[in-house]
Amino acid sequence: MYPIESRRHSAAHVMAAAIKHLFPEAKFGVGPVIENGFYYDIDIGRPVTPEDLKAINKEMRKIVNQNPAFTREELPIDDAIKLFRELDQTYKLELLNDLKTKGTTKVSVEESQDIDPQNVGSVTLYRTGDFVDLCRGPHVTEAKEIGAWKLTKIAGAYWRGKETNPQMQRIYGLCFETEKELDEYEAMLVEAEKRDHRKLGQELDLFVIDEKVGKGLPLWTPRGTAVKFALEEFARELERKYGYEHIETPYLGAEELYRTSGHLDHYAHNMYASIDMDGDKFYLRPMACPHHIRMYQRRPWSYKELPIRYAEIADYNRYEKSGELIGMIRVRKFQLTDGHLFVTPEGLKDEFKNVCRMIVEGMNGLGLIDIVSYRFSKRDPNNKEKYYPDDELWDHAESLMREALDELGLPYVEAEDEAAFYGPKLDVQAKNVNGKEDTLFTAQMDFLLPQKFDMEYIDRDGQKKRPVMIHRSTIGSLERVFGFLIEHYAGAFPMWLAPVQIAVLPVADRHVEFAKKLAQELRDLGLRVMVDDSSESVGKKIRAAEKQKFPRMLVVGDREADGGALTVRVHGEKDQQEISKEKFVEETMAFVKSRRA
Amino acid sequence: MYPIESRRHSAAHVMAAAIKHLFPEAKFGVGPVIENGFYYDIDIGRPVTPEDLKAINKEMRKIVNQNPAFTREELPIDDAIKLFRELDQTYKLELLNDLKTKGTTKVSVEESQDIDPQNVGSVTLYRTGDFVDLCRGPHVTEAKEIGAWKLTKIAGAYWRGKETNPQMQRIYGLCFETEKELDEYEAMLVEAEKRDHRKLGQELDLFVIDEKVGKGLPLWTPRGTAVKFALEEFARELERKYGYEHIETPYLGAEELYRTSGHLDHYAHNMYASIDMDGDKFYLRPMACPHHIRMYQRRPWSYKELPIRYAEIADYNRYEKSGELIGMIRVRKFQLTDGHLFVTPEGLKDEFKNVCRMIVEGMNGLGLIDIVSYRFSKRDPNNKEKYYPDDELWDHAESLMREALDELGLPYVEAEDEAAFYGPKLDVQAKNVNGKEDTLFTAQMDFLLPQKFDMEYIDRDGQKKRPVMIHRSTIGSLERVFGFLIEHYAGAFPMWLAPVQIAVLPVADRHVEFAKKLAQELRDLGLRVMVDDSSESVGKKIRAAEKQKFPRMLVVGDREADGGALTVRVHGEKDQQEISKEKFVEETMAFVKSRRA
Repeated sequence: MYPIESRRHSAAHVMAAAIKHLFPEAKFGVGPVIENGFYYDIDIGRPVTPEDLKAINKEMRKIVNQNPAFTREELPIDDAIKLFRELDQTYKLELLNDLKTKGTTKVSVEESQDIDPQNVGSVTLYRTGDFVDLCRGPHVTEAKEIGAWKLTKIAGAYWRGKETNPQMQRIYGLCFETEKELDEYEAMLVEAEKRDHRKLGQELDLFVIDEKVGKGLPLWTPRGTAVKFALEEFARELERKYGYEHIETPYLGAEELYRTSGHLDHYAHNMYASIDMDGDKFYLRPMACPHHIRMYQRRPWSYKELPIRYAEIADYNRYEKSGELIGMIRVRKFQLTDGHLFVTPEGLKDEFKNVCRMIVEGMNGLGLIDIVSYRFSKRDPNNKEKYYPDDELWDHAESLMREALDELGLPYVEAEDEAAFYGPKLDVQAKNVNGKEDTLFTAQMDFLLPQKFDMEYIDRDGQKKRPVMIHRSTIGSLERVFGFLIEHYAGAFPMWLAPVQIAVLPVADRHVEFAKKLAQELRDLGLRVMVDDSSESVGKKIRAAEKQKFPRMLVVGDREADGGALTVRVHGEKDQQEISKEKFVEETMAFVKSRRA
Repeated sequence: MYPIESRRHSAAHVMAAAIKHLFPEAKFGVGPVIENGFYYDIDIGRPVTPEDLKAINKEMRKIVNQNPAFTREELPIDDAIKLFRELDQTYKLELLNDLKTKGTTKVSVEESQDIDPQNVGSVTLYRTGDFVDLCRGPHVTEAKEIGAWKLTKIAGAYWRGKETNPQMQRIYGLCFETEKELDEYEAMLVEAEKRDHRKLGQELDLFVIDEKVGKGLPLWTPRGTAVKFALEEFARELERKYGYEHIETPYLGAEELYRTSGHLDHYAHNMYASIDMDGDKFYLRPMACPHHIRMYQRRPWSYKELPIRYAEIADYNRYEKSGELIGMIRVRKFQLTDGHLFVTPEGLKDEFKNVCRMIVEGMNGLGLIDIVSYRFSKRDPNNKEKYYPDDELWDHAESLMREALDELGLPYVEAEDEAAFYGPKLDVQAKNVNGKEDTLFTAQMDFLLPQKFDMEYIDRDGQKKRPVMIHRSTIGSLERVFGFLIEHYAGAFPMWLAPVQIAVLPVADRHVEFAKKLAQELRDLGLRVMVDDSSESVGKKIRAAEKQKFPRMLVVGDREADGGALTVRVHGEKDQQEISKEKFVEETMAFVKSRRA
């Protein structure tokens, strides 16, 4: 079978061939394979319209039905230049001339895939019927083997990514081996768009991104804050259970702190610029480790007192380029459910296992365990610059971590060259609704910072020893995990997390007073309750509450107001059931407390 | 009766006379009245020792017993210069020459009190026995009328406050009308020192100020954080009760936000410098009002929905000079139990009354009501620059606020020229253990920011109207109120606030296991419990727990471990009592819940 890239790149060629049929003057730029498909940059002297797209698709279908072969040719570079001059393909010519004179066709961030930079004396061409293209290959043998494709969208793109160059038209297509895969992918896209946390965040009034406040600096609305508080409580309970002490430290740090830690030497590219006051420099902290280390160092410790475990919902500041910001998932200021452990070397493996157990319990509690996987990130022993140079220490740390993971039976994949500078780490990976994997958070062993800060404890023999440090998070950053949760639950949160847990819906105006009294009773129990006292019909109120994905609705009419049983609707279910207030309260409180979905 | 300042300044003269007797070559600088006493800067060619201080005091006593009169003389300035040249008083001469040539004796931040700047042609002298001094007066008539004094300390001070000038010796003294007042003041100082929150903060391990992390950026230790969480819960419960919605907003703001609000024009001196990134400027926010306004502006509002009440434990950043930092009381980053209300003009008075009720309830709950007073801060109508120029609006706002305060019967004092730029305010003042009054927090009416941000709501008649804004805090900044609480309770917090509520003290090693089990049971109920499993005697453990001011101690020996009643000690009480575990739990939980002291 062909690798999927061959199919996708072949589809790009067929698309170019079709364009050439329809627009003989068309000039071609680059046409690489991308995730799930391909694109080609073309220039037909005017914008490409949706009608053009249909025509191109039809022509592609025709070509594939004729099933031309993909044939490879090798040509000396000067012959290729001659050929493309004859074809009047000015963009390709530019690439070929670059290749000849500079030995590279690197155009911008994305490298041209058309020419094999290993073989500059000659270039390869691929022919498909009457179409010929500069191309490194490989391709499918004949067009019918491409599989299933679909042209999706048109966008403007500057030649070689430079604004001063001509603007070309970039035509995107999807391509999969089978129609079924293509259909599934498209269905997934539709679902992902519905679940997009930015869209739901606005519809359900969960957070606000306001450019006037600042890009990448989201505001948590009352409803979002209710979820945040529930997440904080969840994290802190878990932390208490695992023996952590809570501390609070400032999001600012003096220059010396981040000189000692090495962040200013190794991590400055992710940090905000300094704030200069009276000759002192302050930094918005990118990490809280130095603060937690200084907390540890406020007094001496005995080996009997270790491990010391500090947890904090800590403010982190990392400056991301504005183009890389994504709703709550990628922001410029976030709150990490952070923690640092200071451990004796002998206690390291056991404590790391405890950290892993806690992470699994956390992901389980949030209902994310099914979308989470674990990656054991090691160094590349040959990459001497990227990793702290101490082979023995690395071997020890990596084998300790592997033992811990194996003893727990945690399913993990190993990844070389993905460790932190100072030690190996466990990455908790999560798949978002687009099927893309992202790191939710990590747990890391660190032998270096304890050394840089000259940390110590008094061992059994009265000698000063150096503790090892574990950096870890409980459930990741509240912003990112919130984004994942919104998408995972499509906004229909489990009751314990829901911003509004119960909507009380009076049937008529005369029931509003009772509805408000009932709501207050429920609020006094710690439940989050809203009353829809608008003058809409109860049918409309139910539909609005369904749209807002409130887990429970209490419909309040004459019978209910007269002290009868309550009428309860569950989100997403058509039936309503009658239940006494006492029973409803009892069941609801137990359900919320259970944190079940 | 003499004003206390006359007594204090007379004491300074008598001290100078005594010094002249003991050190005939002594040269005198300035000797002003200060809070609670006086000082004099002198130069005897060497440091003053504690022995010198005793001798000076003895000589002062002798002089007072001789009871010389204070007599006033007026002298043309040239005659005065001649006199002090003869006396070889070089510093005084410098002042006189300045007065003659520049018309001022202003030396540094503190103005010399010796010469009346209104009367430059001649100067006044005061004689006390054989001592003569340049002096504006007034003084007591004779030395015996000075009252009670005591010399307290010696410090170095540069002549005229300039480091390049000679260093003089500054001798400080206290002075009161009666010995009783002096004794009381000294006792208060001793008590205040014992209660100093910086001292107790370290002894009880509540917070850390670490220069390496940054001046004015305290870290909350595990014990401090426990108190902080209790305070946060208290504030949030109160806020929920009064109809606030909780939100969370970032401590950063884009430049435009603080341009619109006017902070960059009027408040920049208190702000940190900007953080410049990719051509954008970010600021650490000095206040959260603009963020709350933008939250309000995320959607339109109807008059029926107002007032909107947002509460947030909000990060504030104000750059204070390092010399002005005081422990937790004056810091460079703090968390304000903040809130902003958006109100219809018709609803303003009622809502302001609600704010006042809430403040009183908060101060009551914390047990601070006795040290708190209220100040109604108005503008000075003649100071056109300092206040937003709209007489009608000011008159309206001030009379509304006065009505609200009067209707509530809140005892307040009025203070002119203490309002905010944009409206009148209620200052919640608190007296610290030194008897000094400080503003704990404020509640302010604001007509200006709603205008600057063009805020609106839809009124009953369908027209767009402008809401009024109230800025207010629930219990002030957590840092400052924590500092006040530490000092107010001398570290012996009410049980609900105590960082450790119960100390379990095993009598012998064999009781440690039971002690830990018991502690865990209590922790599972949400109580904060420590176990002293050191190998010290139980007597020593009790003393240590008393010193740490833990509200309850459970002494665990054989009987307790065998399932008998618990032995409970209350902090500060000698007796212990026996009580069943069930009863102890029940009483303790109820007591914590009641938040009583």
